[in-house]
Amino acid sequence: MESLSRASIANPGTLSPTSSSASYFLFPRRFRLSNGFSSSSAFGNLRRIVSRGRVRAEIEKPNAPVIDFSDPEWRIKYQKDFELRFNIPHITDVFPDAKPIPSTFCLRMRTPVSEDFAGGYPSDEEWHGYINNNDRVLLKTINFASPNSAGAVCIDPDCTWVEQWVHRAGPREKIYFKPEEVKAAIVTCGGLCPGLNDVIRQVVITLEIYGVKSIVGIPFGYRGFSNSDLSEMPLSRKVVQNIHLSGGSLLGVSRGGPSVSDIVDRMQEKGINMIFVLGGNGTHAGANAIHEECRKRKLKVAVVGVPKTIDNDILLMDKTFGFDTAVEEAQRAINSAYIEAHSAYHGVGIVKLMGRHSGFIAMHASLASGQIDICLIPEVPFQLHGPHGVLTHLKYLIETKGSAVVCVAEGAGQVILTTNFCVPSRGFNALSSLFQELSVSTKKYFREIGVHADVKYIDPTYMIRACRANASDGILCAVLGQNAVSFPLIPLSPLCQG
Amino acid sequence: MESLSRASIANPGTLSPTSSSASYFLFPRRFRLSNGFSSSSAFGNLRRIVSRGRVRAEIEKPNAPVIDFSDPEWRIKYQKDFELRFNIPHITDVFPDAKPIPSTFCLRMRTPVSEDFAGGYPSDEEWHGYINNNDRVLLKTINFASPNSAGAVCIDPDCTWVEQWVHRAGPREKIYFKPEEVKAAIVTCGGLCPGLNDVIRQVVITLEIYGVKSIVGIPFGYRGFSNSDLSEMPLSRKVVQNIHLSGGSLLGVSRGGPSVSDIVDRMQEKGINMIFVLGGNGTHAGANAIHEECRKRKLKVAVVGVPKTIDNDILLMDKTFGFDTAVEEAQRAINSAYIEAHSAYHGVGIVKLMGRHSGFIAMHASLASGQIDICLIPEVPFQLHGPHGVLTHLKYLIETKGSAVVCVAEGAGQVILTTNFCVPSRGFNALSSLFQELSVSTKKYFREIGVHADVKYIDPTYMIRACRANASDGILCAVLGQNAVSFPLIPLSPLCQG
Amino acid sequence: MESLSRASIANPGTLSPTSSSASYFLFPRRFRLSNGFSSSSAFGNLRRIVSRGRVRAEIEKPNAPVIDFSDPEWRIKYQKDFELRFNIPHITDVFPDAKPIPSTFCLRMRTPVSEDFAGGYPSDEEWHGYINNNDRVLLKTINFASPNSAGAVCIDPDCTWVEQWVHRAGPREKIYFKPEEVKAAIVTCGGLCPGLNDVIRQVVITLEIYGVKSIVGIPFGYRGFSNSDLSEMPLSRKVVQNIHLSGGSLLGVSRGGPSVSDIVDRMQEKGINMIFVLGGNGTHAGANAIHEECRKRKLKVAVVGVPKTIDNDILLMDKTFGFDTAVEEAQRAINSAYIEAHSAYHGVGIVKLMGRHSGFIAMHASLASGQIDICLIPEVPFQLHGPHGVLTHLKYLIETKGSAVVCVAEGAGQVILTTNFCVPSRGFNALSSLFQELSVSTKKYFREIGVHADVKYIDPTYMIRACRANASDGILCAVLGQNAVSFPLIPLSPLCQG
Amino acid sequence: MESLSRASIANPGTLSPTSSSASYFLFPRRFRLSNGFSSSSAFGNLRRIVSRGRVRAEIEKPNAPVIDFSDPEWRIKYQKDFELRFNIPHITDVFPDAKPIPSTFCLRMRTPVSEDFAGGYPSDEEWHGYINNNDRVLLKTINFASPNSAGAVCIDPDCTWVEQWVHRAGPREKIYFKPEEVKAAIVTCGGLCPGLNDVIRQVVITLEIYGVKSIVGIPFGYRGFSNSDLSEMPLSRKVVQNIHLSGGSLLGVSRGGPSVSDIVDRMQEKGINMIFVLGGNGTHAGANAIHEECRKRKLKVAVVGVPKTIDNDILLMDKTFGFDTAVEEAQRAINSAYIEAHSAYHGVGIVKLMGRHSGFIAMHASLASGQIDICLIPEVPFQLHGPHGVLTHLKYLIETKGSAVVCVAEGAGQVILTTNFCVPSRGFNALSSLFQELSVSTKKYFREIGVHADVKYIDPTYMIRACRANASDGILCAVLGQNAVSFPLIPLSPLCQG
Repeated sequence: MESLSRASIANPGTLSPTSSSASYFLFPRRFRLSNGFSSSSAFGNLRRIVSRGRVRAEIEKPNAPVIDFSDPEWRIKYQKDFELRFNIPHITDVFPDAKPIPSTFCLRMRTPVSEDFAGGYPSDEEWHGYINNNDRVLLKTINFASPNSAGAVCIDPDCTWVEQWVHRAGPREKIYFKPEEVKAAIVTCGGLCPGLNDVIRQVVITLEIYGVKSIVGIPFGYRGFSNSDLSEMPLSRKVVQNIHLSGGSLLGVSRGGPSVSDIVDRMQEKGINMIFVLGGNGTHAGANAIHEECRKRKLKVAVVGVPKTIDNDILLMDKTFGFDTAVEEAQRAINSAYIEAHSAYHGVGIVKLMGRHSGFIAMHASLASGQIDICLIPEVPFQLHGPHGVLTHLKYLIETKGSAVVCVAEGAGQVILTTNFCVPSRGFNALSSLFQELSVSTKKYFREIGVHADVKYIDPTYMIRACRANASDGILCAVLGQNAVSFPLIPLSPLCQG
Repeated sequence: MESLSRASIANPGTLSPTSSSASYFLFPRRFRLSNGFSSSSAFGNLRRIVSRGRVRAEIEKPNAPVIDFSDPEWRIKYQKDFELRFNIPHITDVFPDAKPIPSTFCLRMRTPVSEDFAGGYPSDEEWHGYINNNDRVLLKTINFASPNSAGAVCIDPDCTWVEQWVHRAGPREKIYFKPEEVKAAIVTCGGLCPGLNDVIRQVVITLEIYGVKSIVGIPFGYRGFSNSDLSEMPLSRKVVQNIHLSGGSLLGVSRGGPSVSDIVDRMQEKGINMIFVLGGNGTHAGANAIHEECRKRKLKVAVVGVPKTIDNDILLMDKTFGFDTAVEEAQRAINSAYIEAHSAYHGVGIVKLMGRHSGFIAMHASLASGQIDICLIPEVPFQLHGPHGVLTHLKYLIETKGSAVVCVAEGAGQVILTTNFCVPSRGFNALSSLFQELSVSTKKYFREIGVHADVKYIDPTYMIRACRANASDGILCAVLGQNAVSFPLIPLSPLCQG
Repeated sequence: MESLSRASIANPGTLSPTSSSASYFLFPRRFRLSNGFSSSSAFGNLRRIVSRGRVRAEIEKPNAPVIDFSDPEWRIKYQKDFELRFNIPHITDVFPDAKPIPSTFCLRMRTPVSEDFAGGYPSDEEWHGYINNNDRVLLKTINFASPNSAGAVCIDPDCTWVEQWVHRAGPREKIYFKPEEVKAAIVTCGGLCPGLNDVIRQVVITLEIYGVKSIVGIPFGYRGFSNSDLSEMPLSRKVVQNIHLSGGSLLGVSRGGPSVSDIVDRMQEKGINMIFVLGGNGTHAGANAIHEECRKRKLKVAVVGVPKTIDNDILLMDKTFGFDTAVEEAQRAINSAYIEAHSAYHGVGIVKLMGRHSGFIAMHASLASGQIDICLIPEVPFQLHGPHGVLTHLKYLIETKGSAVVCVAEGAGQVILTTNFCVPSRGFNALSSLFQELSVSTKKYFREIGVHADVKYIDPTYMIRACRANASDGILCAVLGQNAVSFPLIPLSPLCQG
Repeated sequence: MESLSRASIANPGTLSPTSSSASYFLFPRRFRLSNGFSSSSAFGNLRRIVSRGRVRAEIEKPNAPVIDFSDPEWRIKYQKDFELRFNIPHITDVFPDAKPIPSTFCLRMRTPVSEDFAGGYPSDEEWHGYINNNDRVLLKTINFASPNSAGAVCIDPDCTWVEQWVHRAGPREKIYFKPEEVKAAIVTCGGLCPGLNDVIRQVVITLEIYGVKSIVGIPFGYRGFSNSDLSEMPLSRKVVQNIHLSGGSLLGVSRGGPSVSDIVDRMQEKGINMIFVLGGNGTHAGANAIHEECRKRKLKVAVVGVPKTIDNDILLMDKTFGFDTAVEEAQRAINSAYIEAHSAYHGVGIVKLMGRHSGFIAMHASLASGQIDICLIPEVPFQLHGPHGVLTHLKYLIETKGSAVVCVAEGAGQVILTTNFCVPSRGFNALSSLFQELSVSTKKYFREIGVHADVKYIDPTYMIRACRANASDGILCAVLGQNAVSFPLIPLSPLCQG
C-alpha cells in the first residue's frame, strides 16, 4: 500500500462506457483506514509551479516496506504480499452458512422478446452484465525505464515493472442478501463535498433496482443516531430524483457523534442491516469500528464506506468525487484574482484553495487556469524570505510583469509556520494560517522595500464545497453509488470501499 | 490496432500531477489515419440505456486480425506485431546526419542556487524532468477473467491477458532542431471544438520555452495556404495569453483547402519547417500527405498532428479534448428538455447531441444528467416501431411517468433510415435525419394512438462547440500542447500524434 | 390605452427598496384583454439596428382615439377619459354588503417591544407599510419638447405634456376576505417563462403571511380542471421553498382546456374562491370570462391575472417577468453565433430569438452583446433582396469584416413572407419561417454571387424558456407575487393584473 | 437635491428601446460632488428584512432645505430652486465665441436611398434621432396620497405633488467640438466594478462614430498621469471590440494620484482636450477640480464624469452600472451559505456583501435569493444583543428552522461598533468589522447558551467586483457610454454626469 504510486484504475463497469470516467477500487479488509486514508504525503508525484512554467519536482521518499532486492524472487514475493493485503474476504468467511441467490439486478424486459426481434436486440440470455469475481484491474500503467524518468516512482533501484492487481468492482451474478429483508441506511459525515447528493441518489436508485424497499437516511452524520430531535428520513427514487441538481447533502452532515456502541445499539433497534457511510478519514475509522462491533455481536450487517475527500488525497484512486468540480469552480476565484491583479497597479492576487495535506486542487486549478504565477502546495517545501523565497519572486514578477497571481493550498508551508512562529500546528486554524501569513508578509515586504503593491485575497472554499457536482463528477458519483450497492449484496466483504 | 479496446493511458508527464488527467498516445507511422481515425465502430464497449436504468450491451465484433490461437506463441507474436505497428521511427532514420543537442527545455533559475538553500529545493542537477525514451505506457488495464464479464473485449476465446505497450510522451533530454532555426506554424482545420485555443496557446508558450522565436498561425485551416487575401498571423505568448478564455479558434477554421503540393510549396516559400496540425480525420490524412511530400522533397520538416474530435471517437485514447466540455455543456440542453417535458402535459423532450459514429457524448451526458429516459446511439441498433421500438416505450413512459426525455446521438439509427426510407446516406444532412425522423414519427404516432403528447426538440450543437474549454479540458489541452511541441524537437518521427 | 406610450411605472412598495425593480400596474375592468394584451404594434418606440451602430427609427402611428385638439379642454377631457378607462371598481360595487376587516398582513413581533428599545426600532404603531388607496403612479416620465425628439410619442401635434395616472399596487389597511375562509388556487397556462416558479412561490408565501391556510395548485393549466387523471396539488411554504431554484412550472403548463362553464363548476365543487391565473393573452381572456361567469352566478370569487409574456410586449409595463432572464440567456446563443461566425472563413451566424409581435428580446440581447451586426424585428419593415436588402448588407459585411452575426426576432419580416410566398400567415409555424427563409436565401444568395459563405443557425428558444429566473427577475416576481395577493384581499376589483 | 426621493428616470434615447433599461441624469454644475455623491444616508427608502418576511421601515429624516410651507408659492419657488440647481450651463457661457456645427453622429447610408425604396424605409430626412434641448425627464413618478403611505417621501406635511424635471441625455443636432480636433482620453479610478470595460468600449465606439480619431487610455487611474513608467494606451474600435467579455478594466484602476495641477500640465503636454473620468466620489471631486483648473487656464477642455459605484448609492439615479451584476453574482454566495447552513446541524451561514453606506446590494440580493433570514444594512439601526437583538433572533431561527442565513452589508451596524468597541471608525478595515464582530459574537453567544451552532462566513466581494457585466448592465453601460460622449460634443456643460 504505502509504496504504490497513484495509478489509473479503469472500470468499464455496467454504467461506464469508457474506462476513463469510472475509477474504482476495492479496499482490503486490513487496510488501516484511519492511518492510510489521507496519507498522500507518501505520494511524491506532485510538482511545484514556480513562475514562467518552471516546474520542479520534489519527490518525497515513499515509506516503502523493506524488501531484499537481492532475493531473485523479491518481485513475486512483493506481488504476493500485495495481493494478500488487498485480498477481500468473503461473507462466507464470517457466516459460513450464507446462501447465495441469483442477482436481482438483471432486469426483465416489460414484454418478452419475440422472435422477429432477434436481429435487432441481443436476447436477455446473451446479456453479459456481471463482473466476474476473478476480473482484476491493474494499478500501475507506466513502465518507467529509469528512476530518473519524469515522475518515476519505482520499487527497486532498477525500476523493475511489477504488476499490481486489485479486484474489479461491479454487480455480481450471485448476491447474499435477500432484497426484501434489507433495511438500508445512508449517512453523510464531515464537511460538504460536491457530489454527496449524487451518490445518495444513485445508492437509493440502485437499491430499488435490486428490489430493496426499506431505505432511510440518517440525518447530520453519526449524530443522527444519538440526537433525540433527529429522526430518520425515508428515501425512495421519488425523494432523490432531483437532489443531484443542488449542492450540499440532503441528509445533512456533521462531525463527531455518539460512541460506536451506541450507534450499533440504535442500528439494532431500527433494524438496519446495511449501512452506507460517506465521509473522510475519521468517518471511515468509525465505519471500521462499527463493522468490528457488528462482528462481535454476530450481526449480519454490511458496512460500506464511500470515501469522500474533495482534496483527492487518496492513494490508488484516480479521482475522488467532488475534486473535478472543485477544480472547475476554483477557476472562477482564480480568474477574479487575475483580473483584480491585472487591473490594479502592481496588483498581487492570492487565492487559497482546499488541500490540507495535498496540493492536487491547487495544482490542477492552476494548470487549468493558465493564470497562476506561483502555486504553493504542501508537498513541496519553500521559503517566504531569502533570495529564493516567494517574496523575492513576487518582487521580480511585479517588476517584470506588473502583477502576480498566487495560488496557495490550505496546508502549504506548514514547516514555515511552525518554524517561524512556534504555533502549535493543531486544528483547522493553524492549517489555514499560511494564507494569512503570506498576506501579512507580502504587504509588509513591499512596504519595507518601498515598492507599491496592491494585495488582494480570495478564499472561495465554502463557495466551492457547496456547488453541485459537474458532469464529470456526476458520472463518477453514479458509478460509485451503483458499485457501492453491489458490495454488500455480493458481498465480498462486510467492509469495502467504493 | 483494429482489435484493441479503448484503454486507459496515463501520462504522469511533467505538467500532469495525476495520471487521470493526462491521456497521451503516440500514433505509429503506418497508422492509417484516414481509415482508422474515427473507426469507433470497431469498438463495442458501448451500451444503450433504455428506460429505468436498464442497460443492455450490444457488442459488435471487432474487426480483429486473423490469429492462430493454436500457436503456443500467438501471444508473443501478437505483441511483436503490435509493437511493430506502433514503432515510431526516429528522425535519424530519414536524416542519418541529424545531430542531437541538449534540450533547451530545462530552464535555468534566475539566480544560482546558493548553499544555504539546498535543504529546501532540490538543486537543478537533481532535476528529473525528462521522459526516458524507453518509458512505456500500458494500453489495457483490465484483466477480464471471462469473455462474459461485463464489457469484456478479448483477443482469444480464453480472454488471455496480453500486454500492449506504447511510447510515453513528453520532453526528452536531447532535441534535434535548433530552436533559433525553427519557424513553426499552427493550423486548425474542420469544425470548432472546445479547447482549440488552449492547444494553440500551449504550443506557442512551450515553443517559446524551448527558445523558438518564429511562430505563426495559418488562418482558416489549410485554406490559409492558398487564399491570397489571408496572411499568416504572428504568434507569441503575449498574443495567446488569454485566448483560452474564449471559445472558437483564434486562427479560424475551415474544411478543405489547396492541394498538398501547393501547401508544401507555400511552406517552402515561407520557410516553415515545423507545422502543428489540429484537426480530424481528413485533416490528418492531409498532414500525412504533407509529411510524405516533404520526405520526397528531402525537406527537414516536422509535421505534428493533434487529433481534434469532440466526439471522443478515437480508439486507444481515454479522452479527446473538448469532449468533457461538450458533456458538461450538454447538461444545459438536457435540463431544458427535462424541464420542458416535465412542465408540459404529456411532454416529450428530445435532445440531439454530437456523435456521428459514436455515442460517447450522448451516453456520458445522459449518465451525468440523471434525467434521460432513452438514449439512442449509433453503436446499438434499435427500431422506432414495433413492440420493442422506441415509440412503444415512449407511450409506456407517458402513461406511467407522464413525460419522457430522449437523447439522440447525431448518427444513431442510420440503419433505420436507410432501411425504411431508402435515402442515400451521404453527407451531413442524411446523418442528422434520425433526429428529424424521430420528431415527425413521435408526433404522428401519438396522434394515431389518440394520446396527447407535447413534443419539443433541442439541438444545442453550435452552442456546445463554441464553448471555451472547461477546467478538465483546459488541463488536457495544456498537456497535449506541451507534448505536441516535444515531438518535432525530439523528434522521434516526422509524424506523430499528441 | 391604445394611445399610451410604454412608460416607467415605479412602485417603491413594501418589498421594493428602489423604484426601478418593481414595476406594477392595475388593469381596468374594461380593459379588453384579448385584444390589447399583445398590441405592441401600437407602440412605435422600437428601432432597427443595421450595421455599424446605424439606428433608424420606424414609428408606426399609434391607433389614437379621435381627439379634437382645438377644444381648449381636450387635455382635461383626455385625462378624464383615461382615468375612466383605468378606474378600478371596488368589490362593494358588486357585493354592497362586503365588510372590510383590518389587514392581517401587519405582522406582530414575536416579543413585545420593550421601552428600552424604542431608540433603535420604530414601534409597531409607527409602521407605515400600507399603500394609500389614493396613491397614484405616473405612466409617462418624459416631456418631449417636440414630436421630432428621438423616440417622441405625443398625443397632440405640439407634444403637450399630459399626465396619466394609474393606481399604485400593494397591501392595503383593510381587506375584504377573511383569510380562514379563503381557498386559493394557482394555475399556470401557456408556454414556459422564467420566473413562473418564483411567482407561484411568492403567492403562496404571501397568502400564508395573510393567514390563508388552504392553497392548491391546478396542474397543467386550465386542463387541470377537466382531466380526471389530474388532481390538485396542496401548496405551502414548505412545498414551494426552493422551487424558484429551477426553471419551468411546478404546476405544469398547457394551452387550451375545458369550457368556462366547466371550469366554474369545478371551482364551485372544490370550494375555490380565489384564483391566480398566470398566462398570456388567451389565458387572460379566459380569466375574464371566468370572472364574468362568477358574477353571473353571484359567486364571491376573486380572479387575479398575472400577465406572463417573455416577449415583454405589454404596453404600460416596464418589464414583464422572464424578459430580463431571456435577454441574459440569449447572450450565450449570440456569443456562440459570434464565435462560429468569426472562427469560420466568411462565417455568418444567425440567431433566432423570441418575439412574435415585438422585438424587445432581440433588441436588448443585441445591445447587451455588442456582437450583432444586423437585428431584424417585427416593428421595422425590411427587405431581403435589393440594394438596401439584408442580403446586400451581409455581402458588404463579409467583404469588409470577414464575418457577420444576425439576430432575428421570431416574428420579424412577416410582410416579406406573406408578400413573397403567399403563405397563409397562420399559427406558429408560419411565424417562424423568416428564420428559415433567411437561412435558405442567404445560402442561395452567396452561392449565386460566387462568394464563399459559411452559414450557421442557432435557435435557443427552449433553452431560454426553461431557465430559472435571474436575480432581477427574481425580485420582479417576488413583488408581482406579493402584490397579486393583495388585490383579491383588498379587493378593489374582482379582476386585476399584477 | 437633498430632499429628493430616488426616482425612476427614463431615457428612451437612441440606443434604448424601452425606458426601463436606460436611466440617465444630468448633474448640475454646482452639484457638490464630493459631498453629495454617496449621500444615500439622506435617503430613507430602505427597509430591513427581519425573519419571516417581516418588513420594517426605518425612515431617516431627509436633510431638507428650510421651506416655508405657509407661503402659497412655496411649490413654485421649490421648483424654481430645483431647476436652478440643476441648470446646466452651456459652453457658450464660458467661451462665448464657440461655434456650433451640425452633428456628425447622423450617419450616412452606404448607398443613397433610391425612389423605389421609400415604401420600406423612412428616408434620412425623416430621421428623428436627436434629443431636443428642451426635453425633460421627471424624477418622481409616485404621487403619495399621504405621508403614511408605504415608502412615502414628501416635501411638505400634505405630501403635495411637486414635479421635478431634469435634462434629458442624448445626442444633439449641433455639436461644439470638431471631431478631427479632439484628442480624447479615458481614465478609470477607484476599485473594480462590473461594466467598466463596457463603458470604455462604448465611449470609444461612439467617439469613432462621431469621427474622433485620437483616443487614448490613461493607465491605472490618475496615477497614469504621473508615473513615468506608464504610457498612454491608444484606443480604437479594434482594441475594444471584445473587452466587455471580461471583467476588470482594460486600462487598470488605482486610487489617488498626482495633484490636479500636475494632471492638467500633463493633459496640456499630451494635447488632451476631452477627458472621460470613470470613478467614485473622490474621483469626481478630482474631475471637478480638473475642470476648474482648465477654466482658470482658459483651456477648452471637456471633462465628463461617469459615476461608478457598485453600491448603487447615488440619489436620483435608478441604477448605477455594475449593481445589477453584483446582485446577480451575490446569488452564488448566498446559495452557498444557504446550502452550508442547511446541510449542517444548526448551521448559520453569514454572507458579507458590498455597501459601505447603503444596503441596496444586500437588500436586492436577499430578495432575489429568497434564502435570507436576516438582512442587516447601514440604513437601519439594530442591536446584536438583547431581547430584540440579532443573536436572540438567530437562536429562535435555530430552534424553529434548524438553520439560518444572514446577509450583512459591509457598512451595517457601524453604530454598534463605535458604541461597543470605541474603535475609531476610519478607513476600510473599521467598516468591515461588523462582519467579523458578528462572526465572533455568534460563536461566543451559542457557546454561552450551550446550543450547538456551526457558523460559516463567506465574503465574495472580489469575486463579484471582478465579474463581467451581465446583459442588463451591458445595456446600461452602452447607453451611459454613448450619452457620455454626447455631452462634451454638445456641450451643455464642461462638467456633467452620465
